[in-house]
Amino acid sequence: MSTPDLPVLRLKPKTDARRIRHGHPWVFANEAVTDRRTKALPPGTIAELQDEERTPIALVAVNPESRIIGRVLDVAGAGLPDQAWFAKRLSRALAMRERLYAAPFYRLVHAEADGLPGVIIDRFGDTCVIQPNAAWAEALIEPLAAALAEVTGVANILKNASGRARGLEGLDDLSSVLLGAAPEAPVPVQMNGATYMADLTGGQKTGLFYDQRPNHAFAAGLSQGARVLDVFSHVGGFGLAALAGGAVSATAVDGSAPALDLAARGAAAMGAAERFTTRQGDAFAELEALAGEGAQFDVVICDPPAFAPSKQALEAGLRAYERIARLAAPLVAEGGYLGLCSCSHAADLAKFRQASIRGIGRGLAGTGRASALIHTGFAGPDHPMHPQLAESGYLKALFFRL
Amino acid sequence: MSTPDLPVLRLKPKTDARRIRHGHPWVFANEAVTDRRTKALPPGTIAELQDEERTPIALVAVNPESRIIGRVLDVAGAGLPDQAWFAKRLSRALAMRERLYAAPFYRLVHAEADGLPGVIIDRFGDTCVIQPNAAWAEALIEPLAAALAEVTGVANILKNASGRARGLEGLDDLSSVLLGAAPEAPVPVQMNGATYMADLTGGQKTGLFYDQRPNHAFAAGLSQGARVLDVFSHVGGFGLAALAGGAVSATAVDGSAPALDLAARGAAAMGAAERFTTRQGDAFAELEALAGEGAQFDVVICDPPAFAPSKQALEAGLRAYERIARLAAPLVAEGGYLGLCSCSHAADLAKFRQASIRGIGRGLAGTGRASALIHTGFAGPDHPMHPQLAESGYLKALFFRL
Repeated sequence: MSTPDLPVLRLKPKTDARRIRHGHPWVFANEAVTDRRTKALPPGTIAELQDEERTPIALVAVNPESRIIGRVLDVAGAGLPDQAWFAKRLSRALAMRERLYAAPFYRLVHAEADGLPGVIIDRFGDTCVIQPNAAWAEALIEPLAAALAEVTGVANILKNASGRARGLEGLDDLSSVLLGAAPEAPVPVQMNGATYMADLTGGQKTGLFYDQRPNHAFAAGLSQGARVLDVFSHVGGFGLAALAGGAVSATAVDGSAPALDLAARGAAAMGAAERFTTRQGDAFAELEALAGEGAQFDVVICDPPAFAPSKQALEAGLRAYERIARLAAPLVAEGGYLGLCSCSHAADLAKFRQASIRGIGRGLAGTGRASALIHTGFAGPDHPMHPQLAESGYLKALFFRL
Repeated sequence: MSTPDLPVLRLKPKTDARRIRHGHPWVFANEAVTDRRTKALPPGTIAELQDEERTPIALVAVNPESRIIGRVLDVAGAGLPDQAWFAKRLSRALAMRERLYAAPFYRLVHAEADGLPGVIIDRFGDTCVIQPNAAWAEALIEPLAAALAEVTGVANILKNASGRARGLEGLDDLSSVLLGAAPEAPVPVQMNGATYMADLTGGQKTGLFYDQRPNHAFAAGLSQGARVLDVFSHVGGFGLAALAGGAVSATAVDGSAPALDLAARGAAAMGAAERFTTRQGDAFAELEALAGEGAQFDVVICDPPAFAPSKQALEAGLRAYERIARLAAPLVAEGGYLGLCSCSHAADLAKFRQASIRGIGRGLAGTGRASALIHTGFAGPDHPMHPQLAESGYLKALFFRL
């Protein structure tokens, strides 16, 4: 069924439409006819995707400036996205999170897998933060925000325009308040028994990431009575979870003073300030310094930024992961645990695991100590994956016993 | 350092010894000199592995009848395994399980990754079941069992000789009692709030598998208020966990009447008998019958036996996984959840995921329903992996929202 009067995005002759008919949510620029009329479509235009024989395939959002020229929004013939359309998708996303989590702190919308391509929405209790990282969502931000208020009942909706993908979509980086007001103080967030301080508007972009929640929980389960080192701690992700899990001490290492300050405030809110220490500095240098001090920990977790953000950066990134593992392993006491994380799309699980195992081997060379891989974790279920993009699982966490 | 008077297993010239020096625990038959003297070594002989220049590499257990002719037990020069040697390894394995689990029900030893090649030990409270699946462990079963009693203090130790691998090692299939007595009744096991009945000695080999524990927990977290279908339920793995998680009903499908009987006894022990139903029969036929009845469930989990136990069986196995997904998906109510598991070594995560996604796509074809992959899980941490064998992660669990 076709929708009359809609602009058309047409697939080139010989383009295989089956991929999209079978559910793939993206049309790449080299697959579509990019004549003058198509190129003139304003970014974010809703259009009908047709094959070369003019058979309707899907309702898509078009951005002639993006490598992803079309993003599938709905079946062909569906009505244009309005507040009711957004409300339906948001309700479906909300139902899953409410089933999974006791409190309203989670990623509410994770883009394609939640039926809203390019849209990220994180919820912090009474406040939602929307990242409209695709032009169509920017253009329809008003009905989206109205539907979000309707479905969740939150008092505040912020727009965060700092996403790197926005540049690729030709969008600006001006954040704003869409409803209510921005929280003046960091918002306390409960996860795994720990209290995190999320600064939703600070110039430092400290924020909070929900994706590591199940991996934090695994680390917490190892931490009873343990001395814990959290490298690249950000606002205290693993370290505060370890304190909640009964760690006798947690040391957080990060380059960012504002992040460490929020981590310390989280520890204080947990009544665990006296078990919490921070070290500001370059993580590699701090790992070397700790080795020089003869420091030993029962649990060490390293959760670095993406060392391999692109295919070009893969080899250097893998070397960096290996180096982290090599420097961290000797800090783990005999029989202790080492958690290594990667949020690099380009480094798949097998490659990251290999680099980690190689680094551990080097770090423990000559000690006669063996290692075992006890747990492999990914992002939590509030970060679902579109089945056709399932290879894109960016977050990996490996826990070893050394 | 060499150990005098030990038989020698020598690597062939040009065999790359680095793999083993870097921690790989196996010597393959085609890598070693198999002269008459080597061939005459009784299976399970402890020997010194040397390279072609007679440099000691490791202490190994030799089985000239096995494709894995040598299994690394320790560094070169280490003493022969005795009760103290076993006690040290068992203590290390026990320390991790005691950290992870509140009650003494877990896999205590998972072979190579716990430093005891080919040895599996499951603990059920006061009873341990040893599977000595390599000749060296069969030969040293007495000091092993003595060390196990010493370290854990269990009253009963059983030897289970039913493992398929024993045949490859030239071992018999005669199970026995090594200490105490075999429990006369099924042992109640608490996991994730559910009660499972483990028949440790019954002729039906129903037993209990600990490996799915974290995936059971994930399913339980989805099950509050849900109608749940557990296909290939065995003694009720997912179904009873779902009842513990608040399911309004759980239906268990399995071909084995004794397994379903144990499942029903577990449900009764939980006080949940009235929420539990069983259907005995072929799982494929039962899935088709349920579709014919118009049955709908909020959560469906399929945990079949290994459809692809070998590389030869891979293609047929993947078709079977796809078929399971295709038959199960239409039984999931709109917005519900489908869990698909594979315990096939040969079907890696990517292949199993692809087959599952294809099956779901076919099962939902024409309904306009989308799916999202919300969770990927593996065996629990009491099933660690040797880092050099980490590709051998056999158990995969995928949870989709449909």
